[in-house]
Amino acid sequence: MNFLIIGADAAGMSAASRAKRSMPEMAVTVLEMTHDVSYSACGMPYNIAAPEKAIEDLVVREADVFRKKQGINLLTGHRVDAIFPKEKTVSGTTHKGEKFEFSYDKLLIATGGSPIVPDLPGFDLPGVLGLKSLDHGRKIKAFIDEHNVKKAVIIGMGYIGLEMCEALRSRSIEVAMVKPNPRFLPWMTQELSEKVQKEVKANGGKLHLGHAVQKIKPANTGLSVVCEDLSLDADMVIVAIGITPNSECAVNAGLEISIRNSISVDRGLKTSDESIYAAGDCADAYHVVTGEKTFIPLALRANRAGWAVADNICGKPTELEGVVGTSVFKVFNLQIARTGLTSKESLKYGFDPAEVVIKTRSRAHAHPGSTPIQVHLIGDKKSGRLLGAQMVGKEGVAHRINAVAVALHNRMTVERFSQTDLAYAPPFSPVWDPLLTAANQLLKRM
Amino acid sequence: MNFLIIGADAAGMSAASRAKRSMPEMAVTVLEMTHDVSYSACGMPYNIAAPEKAIEDLVVREADVFRKKQGINLLTGHRVDAIFPKEKTVSGTTHKGEKFEFSYDKLLIATGGSPIVPDLPGFDLPGVLGLKSLDHGRKIKAFIDEHNVKKAVIIGMGYIGLEMCEALRSRSIEVAMVKPNPRFLPWMTQELSEKVQKEVKANGGKLHLGHAVQKIKPANTGLSVVCEDLSLDADMVIVAIGITPNSECAVNAGLEISIRNSISVDRGLKTSDESIYAAGDCADAYHVVTGEKTFIPLALRANRAGWAVADNICGKPTELEGVVGTSVFKVFNLQIARTGLTSKESLKYGFDPAEVVIKTRSRAHAHPGSTPIQVHLIGDKKSGRLLGAQMVGKEGVAHRINAVAVALHNRMTVERFSQTDLAYAPPFSPVWDPLLTAANQLLKRM
Repeated sequence: MNFLIIGADAAGMSAASRAKRSMPEMAVTVLEMTHDVSYSACGMPYNIAAPEKAIEDLVVREADVFRKKQGINLLTGHRVDAIFPKEKTVSGTTHKGEKFEFSYDKLLIATGGSPIVPDLPGFDLPGVLGLKSLDHGRKIKAFIDEHNVKKAVIIGMGYIGLEMCEALRSRSIEVAMVKPNPRFLPWMTQELSEKVQKEVKANGGKLHLGHAVQKIKPANTGLSVVCEDLSLDADMVIVAIGITPNSECAVNAGLEISIRNSISVDRGLKTSDESIYAAGDCADAYHVVTGEKTFIPLALRANRAGWAVADNICGKPTELEGVVGTSVFKVFNLQIARTGLTSKESLKYGFDPAEVVIKTRSRAHAHPGSTPIQVHLIGDKKSGRLLGAQMVGKEGVAHRINAVAVALHNRMTVERFSQTDLAYAPPFSPVWDPLLTAANQLLKRM
Repeated sequence: MNFLIIGADAAGMSAASRAKRSMPEMAVTVLEMTHDVSYSACGMPYNIAAPEKAIEDLVVREADVFRKKQGINLLTGHRVDAIFPKEKTVSGTTHKGEKFEFSYDKLLIATGGSPIVPDLPGFDLPGVLGLKSLDHGRKIKAFIDEHNVKKAVIIGMGYIGLEMCEALRSRSIEVAMVKPNPRFLPWMTQELSEKVQKEVKANGGKLHLGHAVQKIKPANTGLSVVCEDLSLDADMVIVAIGITPNSECAVNAGLEISIRNSISVDRGLKTSDESIYAAGDCADAYHVVTGEKTFIPLALRANRAGWAVADNICGKPTELEGVVGTSVFKVFNLQIARTGLTSKESLKYGFDPAEVVIKTRSRAHAHPGSTPIQVHLIGDKKSGRLLGAQMVGKEGVAHRINAVAVALHNRMTVERFSQTDLAYAPPFSPVWDPLLTAANQLLKRM
């Protein structure tokens, strides 16, 4: 068996390692376009915040460990340009410009995603930088140092933009953020979104909502981000308006394509071609709550999908249940978490949503150090099912959301969820956990 | 309808308030033996730690709020001595020595529990104190002040004993703990138990395991706790060897009695008498994992049971699913949590347990401030079901356990649990949440 993998980050290397562990005799080759393998991409904002740290600290396992200890034929600097499903080959170019061709019995496309770059003037100027690969992080750190960056503009206010805002502020860099949508976190219920917005402002992030960027142009010694009625000067511009799947090769090979150009895969991670799998940020996934396809590029599912591909190839048939859309991020002193559907998504998928927002405390009555926790909970009036949750608070948010995630995997009703036996001790929670208080309130609206 | 309640803490007042809200015309009378109502008993160790705070800070709602705003006939200083199910009356004595009698249509016994006091010499000496009611807390605080306590012995090493150890150490009081069992936290797997034991020692708690107390006697200016081969001097002795249900009246009234003398109730909280309910620390409960009766005196289920009794009495039939045995407590800088069954319990209830202990980190690879998290996970080899979890760590334990609790309510298999979409961001977790890593490892042993 000849197992070929395109891409050497989370999904690709998870698959390679697991396949080699299961079947040591299998020939496993990984073709990686860059020179970086197996790193914690999500850790980049925190590494960028720390000038004394090398970006390479984020490397989880060195390329040579995969090569020498695990026997994986890992080739960096190998960019795949085309996949030929009929011939079961791929062709490409090395960083030295040499052409190569590899054949496969089974192929895994784990090409990840790239920062979306709008087709507008000036987004190719030096100092206009995205953040997805380790090399992006490396470039941002180098640019800050070499150009003594004092002022940055971040285009986009998603979680990467917000994490970068915190990172740059911690280095005393002035940060202005800009985006066309007048709503701050549009997927989040208004009350909670405002709380996060305040936190960003309180920490010196300047927010320009409702401004569509028209172009970026050189200005003075730096750059100017130009909107219709606003110009923002900066030494550096971070473009963080989302991730697009790296699916070009898959498209050209005629594989079935799904939401936002991601590669369509079944529950076993197989594409429309019998011998080709796709996993990670380049592929779609099933959403457990809706039962429909979704595109949520996050690290856990990439790792998990990589494992599942390996298992399927090694004769252990595996199907993934799918994602429920759980995510968490930190913005200065706030933890922001969500899982499941928003109310807008609930409507879109034919549910009849009831929702509630509650504000309670992170610790028991009279316990010192308590801070506010806000919970938004959504249920379906027709079936009684719990559909989703959002939470904001200074403590007790990041892991608490997991209880709802597990409930969603089990299609629990709000009523049954309200009866769950959650942990209580004064330093950690009110007697009625914030989630239970929210569920009890939501029940009245179902 | 004449609704009579014995006991004015969590279960009793939850039932009284909810019944009055549902049916304002209902006559609701609460008879409370002490003068304290509706307080956060679990907060007492933390209040005792703070000499500047009044114990009354723990009162959640004043008696007069229940009386005047909610119209509940709340009578403190009323000790019920006997229940007469045939006559549907109760009789008792006020703190002034006056006899009283009340009749009822529906009765709720919410008498709570009391600290177990062994039948040994000297446990009635001044300065030998238990901790359950607010008055216990009041007495401990007063005793510390009046006798300028510098040295304490705690008999028992359960969570109340450990919380009291932390409380007293924070007031620079020397603490020695003693108990007959040579194992520190006997319900906890060895590795995790040792971690907690180290934490107590590192914070100055002296542990004397394997010593059965024979008596307490006056010594010098204080007390001496005497074991066969050990004597411990102290200014104050805290007895924290467990809680026993206050079920004497129920026993005498001929009601069916259950585990550890708790009052047997069905899923609707009804006792063996059609008109009598019981809720809170005096009553038993169903364990969701085993389907059998259990006695776990904790605050959430007391509040929840109180509500359910009110709903049942007010014509909204309600059955409780039961508990899964979730609990959490803090010991100095450690969070300790559990849910579900221990391996010993798993065997007792006919499961075929497989178990795993993993040690991982609280934050992502390369993220600063990460601390160890240890997870013990148990599954049933026969059915594949997840049975229980225990966790110890400095952060990310208290709320993380809830994901397992929800899984237990849904009788999830370890395999399905391992597929859940849990939250990840570098400041809060490794990519594979510690629970998922444990589940993945446990799967190999199933």
